[in-house]
Amino acid sequence: MSTSRLMYLPLGGAGEIGMNCYVYGYGPADKERLIVVDLGVAFPDMDSTPGVDLILPDVAWLEARKAQIEAIFITHAHEDHVGAVGHLFERLGAPIYARAFTANIARRKLDEYGVPEGAVTTLSPYPETVEVGPFTVGFVPISHSIPESSGLVIDTPEGRVLHTGDFKIDTNPIVGEAFDADLWASLAKDGVRALVCDSTNVFSKAEGRSESTVGPEIETMMREASGMVVATTFASNIARLQTLASAAKRAGRSVCLLGRSMRRMVEAATDVGILGDFPSVVSVEDAREIPRENLMLLVTGSQGERRAASAQLARGKYLGLSMAEGDTFLFSSKTIPGNERGVIQIMNAFSEMGVDVVYDDEGKYHVSGHANRPDLLTMHQLTKPQILVPMHGEHRHLREHAKLGKAGGIDSIVAVNGMMIDLSGNAPTVAEYIESGRTYLDGSVQVGAFDGIVRDRIRMALNGHVVATLILDENDDPLGDPWCEIKGIAEMGSSDAPLVDVLEHDLGQMINRANDKTLADDDKLEEQIKRTVRQTTQAEIGKKVEVTVVISRLA
Amino acid sequence: MSTSRLMYLPLGGAGEIGMNCYVYGYGPADKERLIVVDLGVAFPDMDSTPGVDLILPDVAWLEARKAQIEAIFITHAHEDHVGAVGHLFERLGAPIYARAFTANIARRKLDEYGVPEGAVTTLSPYPETVEVGPFTVGFVPISHSIPESSGLVIDTPEGRVLHTGDFKIDTNPIVGEAFDADLWASLAKDGVRALVCDSTNVFSKAEGRSESTVGPEIETMMREASGMVVATTFASNIARLQTLASAAKRAGRSVCLLGRSMRRMVEAATDVGILGDFPSVVSVEDAREIPRENLMLLVTGSQGERRAASAQLARGKYLGLSMAEGDTFLFSSKTIPGNERGVIQIMNAFSEMGVDVVYDDEGKYHVSGHANRPDLLTMHQLTKPQILVPMHGEHRHLREHAKLGKAGGIDSIVAVNGMMIDLSGNAPTVAEYIESGRTYLDGSVQVGAFDGIVRDRIRMALNGHVVATLILDENDDPLGDPWCEIKGIAEMGSSDAPLVDVLEHDLGQMINRANDKTLADDDKLEEQIKRTVRQTTQAEIGKKVEVTVVISRLA
Repeated sequence: MSTSRLMYLPLGGAGEIGMNCYVYGYGPADKERLIVVDLGVAFPDMDSTPGVDLILPDVAWLEARKAQIEAIFITHAHEDHVGAVGHLFERLGAPIYARAFTANIARRKLDEYGVPEGAVTTLSPYPETVEVGPFTVGFVPISHSIPESSGLVIDTPEGRVLHTGDFKIDTNPIVGEAFDADLWASLAKDGVRALVCDSTNVFSKAEGRSESTVGPEIETMMREASGMVVATTFASNIARLQTLASAAKRAGRSVCLLGRSMRRMVEAATDVGILGDFPSVVSVEDAREIPRENLMLLVTGSQGERRAASAQLARGKYLGLSMAEGDTFLFSSKTIPGNERGVIQIMNAFSEMGVDVVYDDEGKYHVSGHANRPDLLTMHQLTKPQILVPMHGEHRHLREHAKLGKAGGIDSIVAVNGMMIDLSGNAPTVAEYIESGRTYLDGSVQVGAFDGIVRDRIRMALNGHVVATLILDENDDPLGDPWCEIKGIAEMGSSDAPLVDVLEHDLGQMINRANDKTLADDDKLEEQIKRTVRQTTQAEIGKKVEVTVVISRLA
Repeated sequence: MSTSRLMYLPLGGAGEIGMNCYVYGYGPADKERLIVVDLGVAFPDMDSTPGVDLILPDVAWLEARKAQIEAIFITHAHEDHVGAVGHLFERLGAPIYARAFTANIARRKLDEYGVPEGAVTTLSPYPETVEVGPFTVGFVPISHSIPESSGLVIDTPEGRVLHTGDFKIDTNPIVGEAFDADLWASLAKDGVRALVCDSTNVFSKAEGRSESTVGPEIETMMREASGMVVATTFASNIARLQTLASAAKRAGRSVCLLGRSMRRMVEAATDVGILGDFPSVVSVEDAREIPRENLMLLVTGSQGERRAASAQLARGKYLGLSMAEGDTFLFSSKTIPGNERGVIQIMNAFSEMGVDVVYDDEGKYHVSGHANRPDLLTMHQLTKPQILVPMHGEHRHLREHAKLGKAGGIDSIVAVNGMMIDLSGNAPTVAEYIESGRTYLDGSVQVGAFDGIVRDRIRMALNGHVVATLILDENDDPLGDPWCEIKGIAEMGSSDAPLVDVLEHDLGQMINRANDKTLADDDKLEEQIKRTVRQTTQAEIGKKVEVTVVISRLA
């Protein structure tokens, strides 16, 4: 076993925020036994991934080593950690381990693919552990913004690895276990080879604040509001749902949940008995009868998602409920970069209705679920690792976190997706570069990010599209002129004639001039038609359009 | 003339930030003599306006009243105020008035359309005024982030209107005139009928800070930086360019300008003699020979624009210059909502190069060019208007600003684009709703926002595109099977056969089943082909695609 190594390989989540997927391996090079930590998704955007439904980590490398995978561990039930479980399970086919709440969510996702519940094994928190190949793994409770969030203690022949998962340091997190500094220190007492650590908030200089600080502020706000209050946050932020619902109750308001994922999450949390003291909620039917000043709606759509409840309310009636002058809408959330436009659109729509929008830019009604810079230092100091591997961050976060580690005397390495790190030696080194990337769930199909499909869509969106058709007879003689259909481009150009007419005229002239060799050769003909179409659109409307050429030869 | 009225009509900039265009009119209803204030652009984005080059206000209403337009006034040279001058001049055809620097920029834009310089008349600041129809108008210097920014004093038979333009209250703005409270108070001494006032920063609670506060901070940063410093800001923020360049000089660094708009702006400012003490800049060739620690590049691209200098440097070499480990990149700017992704991409690319990115989220190296809430109050108090009309803001800004006015006892009205406000009576009222909107500059063509062109592009981007072709002979008999070309959709679906084959098979069956009546009717045939294609793609790949049907009938 002297040639065995301990390796760490991020396939998602390192060099980006989202789509978490980390691999640990132990064994001889390329024969390592593997475990996977988290199978999350990222969300598409119009700029780079129009029409895509979800973004999954590219697990081709893992799939090719299916027989080496011992197990999959899910640290918590956020979509960027558990969201790909259903879509990727079959390709990896290893047993999944999670704590009860996370397992409940994972099983719902697997069920959509017909995978039986037994695929997921529920583990109790550490000290319970499971032995999987050369690894012994336990779930260590840690505070975050969803119940039963856990770090992992991973014991290996090369020593102990602590994988924090997403975390903050909160000794009063409302829902879920409080951060237990003694527990984390005790895990480290015999030495930690590597701390693989959340980096999201490394640029936030102040100490993180507890979830318990927002409840009183929200209660005051709800007491003072004259009309209905509608609050939004991430549905998966169960602690916040609890905070909001309890504040509403104390302020004399009934709570009604709007939005599928909101109801689902509360249901799952209730299933596993986490939400003991969640106020009873009223149905939408009942909500309609309750005086506005005695009502709080808790709705999905904190990121401005078009189909979520908040956007529906912004457009008018939703399930018979609507906002009115004097109502208040509270964003108990932070806008994720890239979602600003959607959120602002909703804010303005409410403004037009006379609704007061409370957008929490000062953190009065929202606290982050991730450890800030001083909290990261606390974690370093509690666990005193030999090696720090920052994860869960864009490159700038990982780099800054590694700087922080180095400043504290810890051997720190920036490892982005696809970088296999050897953790066995005296210092961490890059063992290999693995092809990693993104897979798009597009409708019901998984397509590679480099398949060119999305690139073609973006081009059609930027440039518009022309279809040019030409029919030739058995002697390669054109039957009539070529003709064109346009989509997504102006109908009139600089000639003040319909663009289609100008295109067909120019193509007709080109075909008349074309020699027999060109007319007999599909590739040449297609190329010339494309070139002519682009020249014409450039001259007429100042754009080089996308072109599809259809050449039909009558046999 | 007893039926004459004074009206205000925003056609852009009220209910959005950008694309400023305000109209004032005086005369009998619909026979008013008109003046236009500002002709600005807004910038497109992939979400709502893919492929569009610029967004212009829809001036159809004005164009239909071309003969009534007395003049166009441009308050300052920012793109959202002057950017549409070239594109719209011909449609409005009225004389343009501006101060020297703004006129210089406007003339460059008009020149691209072959409009002679004489179209723009340069005015000196108030007390110089010009009489245009029933209006007497003067440019009142006001501090903002570009030289010679001005509000307008508009005297009408119904009294005085003060149009602030974009402004902040800065008594030491580095470049351009300081805010002159006495001047604004003196303009109001005989009463102000209406104050039409910038609303951008109404949600910013602290008093605005002076441009002069950032220079010392930047200087310190530049002294402490070990390698090259690259700084970006809006090219049009001449004061900031001055601040950055002077700080660099004091820190012992030569200044090199990168990016066309950066060089252009400095050139225009130098032309009109505004930049007397701007440090001499070095050429790119010379910059390459200067030790990194003695160099500062001042580059375009503070909003992450793909083609700007900052993005080019983030991708590698630009004009022979490149960033290296130990260099510093400073965003002396704020990211406009919606541009976050592009900016973050650049930050991460620099992080990968080992460059320290200073992103100014605490306002140490950047101050806003707009008046904050307390400064707006100061303006209200200085000018004591009868009526407050908030402008230059999204709906939520206008509404909040109107609330602020009302709280101070001023009759305030929220007027968004297309709302014609009668300012003549005792209280402002909505006189009419005018059709307003956006015009897209798309390549070289102006298209209406509701022409469906951009909608089609977005659909192709979201759903992908299939072209289905069918040829029929003179007897309406199909010549062979239909065939398909796909763009932007997966090549393989759930049948594990190429999608094109499945589509052609399904279409072939449909055509075989079709009756003579359908085969003879293009509309019916097209509809059935579309339906079949969508059913098949839905089943195969879970998407309802866009379809173009090409039916060819041999005559």
